[in-house]
Amino acid sequence: MRTVDQKLRDRRRRHILTAAISCFIRDGFHRASMQEICKEAGMSPGNLYRYFDSKEAIIEAIAEDERKENATYYAKLFRAKNFLKSLGKMLGASLKKASDPNYERIALEVAAEASRNPKVAAMFAQNEAETKASLVLALRDAAARGEIDGQLDFEAVATILIAVADGAIGRMSLDPALRTTALMPTMKIMITRFLRPPDGP
Amino acid sequence: MRTVDQKLRDRRRRHILTAAISCFIRDGFHRASMQEICKEAGMSPGNLYRYFDSKEAIIEAIAEDERKENATYYAKLFRAKNFLKSLGKMLGASLKKASDPNYERIALEVAAEASRNPKVAAMFAQNEAETKASLVLALRDAAARGEIDGQLDFEAVATILIAVADGAIGRMSLDPALRTTALMPTMKIMITRFLRPPDGP
Repeated sequence: MRTVDQKLRDRRRRHILTAAISCFIRDGFHRASMQEICKEAGMSPGNLYRYFDSKEAIIEAIAEDERKENATYYAKLFRAKNFLKSLGKMLGASLKKASDPNYERIALEVAAEASRNPKVAAMFAQNEAETKASLVLALRDAAARGEIDGQLDFEAVATILIAVADGAIGRMSLDPALRTTALMPTMKIMITRFLRPPDGP
Repeated sequence: MRTVDQKLRDRRRRHILTAAISCFIRDGFHRASMQEICKEAGMSPGNLYRYFDSKEAIIEAIAEDERKENATYYAKLFRAKNFLKSLGKMLGASLKKASDPNYERIALEVAAEASRNPKVAAMFAQNEAETKASLVLALRDAAARGEIDGQLDFEAVATILIAVADGAIGRMSLDPALRTTALMPTMKIMITRFLRPPDGP
C-alpha cells in the first residue's frame, strides 16, 4: 500500500505544480496567489497545503525538479562515448524543450522574482553552481581522455556553454519564427571547433 | 536659442529615463506608476507628460536608446581593420556594461513585461531583428574579405553570438562572484576558433 500512496502523492504533487505554473504564466509569479493556485488545481486549501505550505515551497519544488533533470543529463554526458557529440545532443535537447513559449515565460518570471527575492535567488544560484560544477567535471574528464583541448579554462568554458544555451532560449522569445533545429548545425560547429584538441582530428 | 532648448530637453529626457529606471528596478516595470516616476524625478505630472505620455512611451525611449547604442557598436565593427579582434572587444564592452546588477534587473523586467505586453514585445523584437541583421551584414563583409569562414550559416552565427553575450549577462545575476574579465580570454578563443577560415592563420 505504501507505494500506491507514494504514487498518488507524486501525481498530486505534479498536478499542483502544473496548476501553479499555469497561474504563474498567466499572472506572473509575484501576483499569483495560493488561493488562485488552489482554484486552478481544483483543490481545497486544506488539501493543497498538505503538499506545499507557500508559493516559495512551490518554486522550490520547481527548482528541485529542474535540478534532478539536469543531473540526469549530466550523468549521460559522463557515460558518453563521444563527448562532443553528446554535448551537442544535450544542448539540442535543452533548446528543444525551451522552444515551448511557456517555458520561456516561466524562466523569465522566476528570474525576475529571483532579482527581488533573495530566497528564490539563492535556490536558483545553487542550481546554477551545481550545473556549472557538473559541466566542469565532465569537461575535465573529457580532456583527460584527450577528447577536448586540455589547455582551456574549464570554468569559463562551462559558463560560456550555459550562456549560449540560455541565451538561445531568450532569442526564441524575441523571434518566434526562430527554430531550434535551424540553429543546431552551427551550434555543433561552434562546440566542436571551440573545444577539440588543437592537434586533434 | 534653439540648440540650448534642445540640450535642456535632452537633459530632462535623460533625467526622466534615469528616474523611471530607478522605479522599475525597485518595484518592477509592471507595478511602477507614472505618479511614482514623477515623484522620483521631482517633476509635476504636467511637466513630465510633456516628455512621455505613458509608461510604454518611456520603455519605447529606453529601447530606442539601446538601438542607437547598438548601431554605434556595429558601425565600429564595419570600420574594423581586424574583424575578430573587434568582435571580441565589442562582446567585452557589452559584458562589462552588463556587469552592473541594475542593468540585469532592467533587462529582466523588460523581458518579463514583453512576455505579457505585445507592444513592448514588438519593440524589443524589432531591436533584436535589427541587431541580428547588422551582425549578419558585418559577418558577410568579413567573410568577403577572407577574415572569417565563408561557409558558415551567418544567420545562425549571429543568433549564437547574441545568445552567448545575452546568456553571459544572465550568469552574472546568478553568480555575483563572476567577473566579466575572467570570461573574456576564453570567449575570445571561442570566437576565433569558431569563425576563422579553416585554412586561415
